[in-house]
Amino acid sequence: MIDPDLDNLITHFSKLPGLGQRSARRIVLHLLKKQQSIMPPFIQSLENVSQNIKTCSVCGNLGTSETCAICLEDRRDASIICVVEDVSDLWALERTHSFKGRYHVLGGTLSALDGVRPEDLRIDSFLKRLDGTVEEIIFALNVTIEGQITVHYIMDKIHDSSIKITRLAHGVPVGGELDYLDDGTLSTALESRQPMLGEAMHKGVVNED
Amino acid sequence: MIDPDLDNLITHFSKLPGLGQRSARRIVLHLLKKQQSIMPPFIQSLENVSQNIKTCSVCGNLGTSETCAICLEDRRDASIICVVEDVSDLWALERTHSFKGRYHVLGGTLSALDGVRPEDLRIDSFLKRLDGTVEEIIFALNVTIEGQITVHYIMDKIHDSSIKITRLAHGVPVGGELDYLDDGTLSTALESRQPMLGEAMHKGVVNED
Repeated sequence: MIDPDLDNLITHFSKLPGLGQRSARRIVLHLLKKQQSIMPPFIQSLENVSQNIKTCSVCGNLGTSETCAICLEDRRDASIICVVEDVSDLWALERTHSFKGRYHVLGGTLSALDGVRPEDLRIDSFLKRLDGTVEEIIFALNVTIEGQITVHYIMDKIHDSSIKITRLAHGVPVGGELDYLDDGTLSTALESRQPMLGEAMHKGVVNED
Repeated sequence: MIDPDLDNLITHFSKLPGLGQRSARRIVLHLLKKQQSIMPPFIQSLENVSQNIKTCSVCGNLGTSETCAICLEDRRDASIICVVEDVSDLWALERTHSFKGRYHVLGGTLSALDGVRPEDLRIDSFLKRLDGTVEEIIFALNVTIEGQITVHYIMDKIHDSSIKITRLAHGVPVGGELDYLDDGTLSTALESRQPMLGEAMHKGVVNED
């Protein structure tokens, strides 16, 4: 006996990631309870995003212009490109404020199961960016089988041997408890153990292997 | 470095019940990934609800007309009114398909802490519905202190002694495991224990106390 309009909106919400029928109903009732104050700005905000947000033609990031703000910013080091799977990974790295290079968003990983082929990702446009000005590529893909296969596929395509290729360090999360870590992470952290004094200072942070 | 439009939409989503920054980011990225197929119908659906949905002037339910579909349906028994806190409770009861009377949505419960007074709820309009045609009132409010205070407040205002007043049965949830039940529910279930054969058939389901 739910009104069709309401039912339709609940269905729309329930299809969003992380939401189900129950949480969708709760959200719709919340929106209706504060209808005047919440609904119009919410709809306006959705329309703004729907109309204005584009994918950057250079790196695949999202922004309001043809080329995104990160690609346009002169102060960022264009000689280092950090390759990520998704825009959410780019956002996560940006929140750390510790990377001042450029990005390249692949838009996913190669996957035989899901039928994702090299031409479905932004691999070609990435290889075209390696025009001699790029000195380092940081692979910041998820440590999954698909992520690692994608890294190796791209590495095979890079013929410029002068480019330094690195990946994020694997190990114990800062603030993490050993007891709760999976075996794979723990054994990697043990193998890649770092000297604590003196030597660590000289070696730098990047773990080259 | 997130675009202001995107950031704004993420903030809107993160303020919805049950969502936080992280889940809001995930939802916004999901909407953008399937921008053409998801966004326009989603916005349209929100606008439909925002413009068309009204609160029923009789019972407080939500619908597209001044009087909701349940209040207009002739086949429903107008002599039984089920009093609920919120529209979500009405929906929950409707999903059972086991109640064929009318509803009254209070819009909350009395609460000294949150400053909810009797005039903030639809209590007056409920009392006005008791015009002699109503034979039974079922209180289906949540079993919280506020819910029970609200029930007793309304019962005090009902002067027609010919009206039967009932509440939902308390006890062990169907499919529930005793071990996981709280003490209050379990002791109530023990006190309100029901005879298993013969007598139960004659006594009927409503637990009068």
